[in-house]
Amino acid sequence: MAQVKVYITLKPSLLDAQGKVVQGALHQLGYEGVEQVRIGKYIEMTVADGPQRDAHIMEMCEKLLANLVIEDYRYEVIE
Amino acid sequence: MAQVKVYITLKPSLLDAQGKVVQGALHQLGYEGVEQVRIGKYIEMTVADGPQRDAHIMEMCEKLLANLVIEDYRYEVIE
Repeated sequence: MAQVKVYITLKPSLLDAQGKVVQGALHQLGYEGVEQVRIGKYIEMTVADGPQRDAHIMEMCEKLLANLVIEDYRYEVIE
Repeated sequence: MAQVKVYITLKPSLLDAQGKVVQGALHQLGYEGVEQVRIGKYIEMTVADGPQRDAHIMEMCEKLLANLVIEDYRYEVIE
């Protein structure tokens, strides 16, 4: 089994409404120096080893975990 | 300005209902080798430099970004 970490982020060209709200809240709390807040998803999972492991991880991201119309993904495998 | 990445995860002792649903969906898609799916948040932001930068990042996480009753956080700073 390999430990896999997947990071899903909104494409940079898209407005992150949730991030804007969080940034506004941080400014209101007095943290004026915070900018460009963007919120994504972080997924941890274990995946069975095998020659197709990386192909399966990419398929899972593309079919279910990320919406490639609006999101990018990257992943890392900890052997 | 420093680039900051924050990872927020559910505490390990808590059941991750959303992760269980995603894991079930992945199994149904034929990815039987996936286990222990846990879903968290990934936040990118830029933070003004200064002697209090790290203290401010921790405060922001503890006051707003993470719910410490049920979540853990960690962060990394890219100078």
